[in-house]
Amino acid sequence: TNKQFQKSVENIEYCQSKIKDLDIKEMEEMKNTAQKYSDYKKIHFDERNKIIRNELPHFWKTAFVNHPQIEELLTEEDVESIDYLVDLYVEDFEDIRAGYFLHFEFSTNPYFTNTVITKEYHLMDKNHKVLGKKEPISVSSEIKWKPDMDLLAKKKKDKKKRKTFSAFFSWFTDNEDPASDELAEVIKEDLWLNPLQYFLDIEAD
Amino acid sequence: TNKQFQKSVENIEYCQSKIKDLDIKEMEEMKNTAQKYSDYKKIHFDERNKIIRNELPHFWKTAFVNHPQIEELLTEEDVESIDYLVDLYVEDFEDIRAGYFLHFEFSTNPYFTNTVITKEYHLMDKNHKVLGKKEPISVSSEIKWKPDMDLLAKKKKDKKKRKTFSAFFSWFTDNEDPASDELAEVIKEDLWLNPLQYFLDIEAD
Repeated sequence: TNKQFQKSVENIEYCQSKIKDLDIKEMEEMKNTAQKYSDYKKIHFDERNKIIRNELPHFWKTAFVNHPQIEELLTEEDVESIDYLVDLYVEDFEDIRAGYFLHFEFSTNPYFTNTVITKEYHLMDKNHKVLGKKEPISVSSEIKWKPDMDLLAKKKKDKKKRKTFSAFFSWFTDNEDPASDELAEVIKEDLWLNPLQYFLDIEAD
Repeated sequence: TNKQFQKSVENIEYCQSKIKDLDIKEMEEMKNTAQKYSDYKKIHFDERNKIIRNELPHFWKTAFVNHPQIEELLTEEDVESIDYLVDLYVEDFEDIRAGYFLHFEFSTNPYFTNTVITKEYHLMDKNHKVLGKKEPISVSSEIKWKPDMDLLAKKKKDKKKRKTFSAFFSWFTDNEDPASDELAEVIKEDLWLNPLQYFLDIEAD
């Protein structure tokens, strides 16, 4: 009968609501676990970065140059500017699923006045849903170039008799297609996780 | 000096080993959480499937036919055979990251003698590493067709004056390219999670 049918449908709806509740709890628990470990790991990343900054000059430049995928991208100009990079760090958003920052901290350098430049990747949409197959969004700090030092000004500087160009800063300022941003992936998932192998130029274990 | 350099490198290695340990613990904890909730949810999925099987005849056929992506694929022959589907269930591997099964349970039917046919998806390689960008592997049960009832035999059966063909069973037996197996995705991530909306042919909330 129709009443029986209705009852069966309601019973299924009850099962579905239980499953939905459990899904929400599971996502919450996963998020908390990720955040907990992110905090635990941060202590060691910070300690590592302190050693790099204070005891190992040219660490990041060397790691960049020895990294097979990153090296391909670097121009001479890039290598010169990246030698002023004293700290690279990846920072998760407060809700770790929502996105992350790539921070690049530079010492005083001839190119720009910023100390830290940041590129951030947003992986969630406005409704706080994780962007699955949807496009992420990236945003980058404005680089405050010193006069005549803009590495992205592509026109020939007659005075200096050289073309200034930077693939690294091109990537940094390009937010057109963050979904296929391979360099961000390489920095976050490889270089940041274990840069020592590239600094020492040894085979990864 | 070289000794200082060596010491700094060792200190970084120590940080990296701590980070690696935390990564392993995090993965373990994530796996345990996923498994715990999978068990919790299974109770409700089982209850739901019991109601479907015992109280709502033609449930799965109706849901299949009303599902916009699945419906596109179904031939008349498929719809006839799928009406014998009494239970659909998705089962995770013991290690939930390693893969999953799609089980299709049929009542006695004119087409084949199997009771349950299963298609399984392996998402990890031999070293128990989750297959990231690597290809998954799928394996399907052998279907024991009754004489002259093979829905995959494409040649015209003169006796019955019809072409027997099934897009559903073609998909089921095709393990060539599991990475782009959209039907498996739809079954696992949509139809299985909430089939009621398709059974009732209502808008999803």
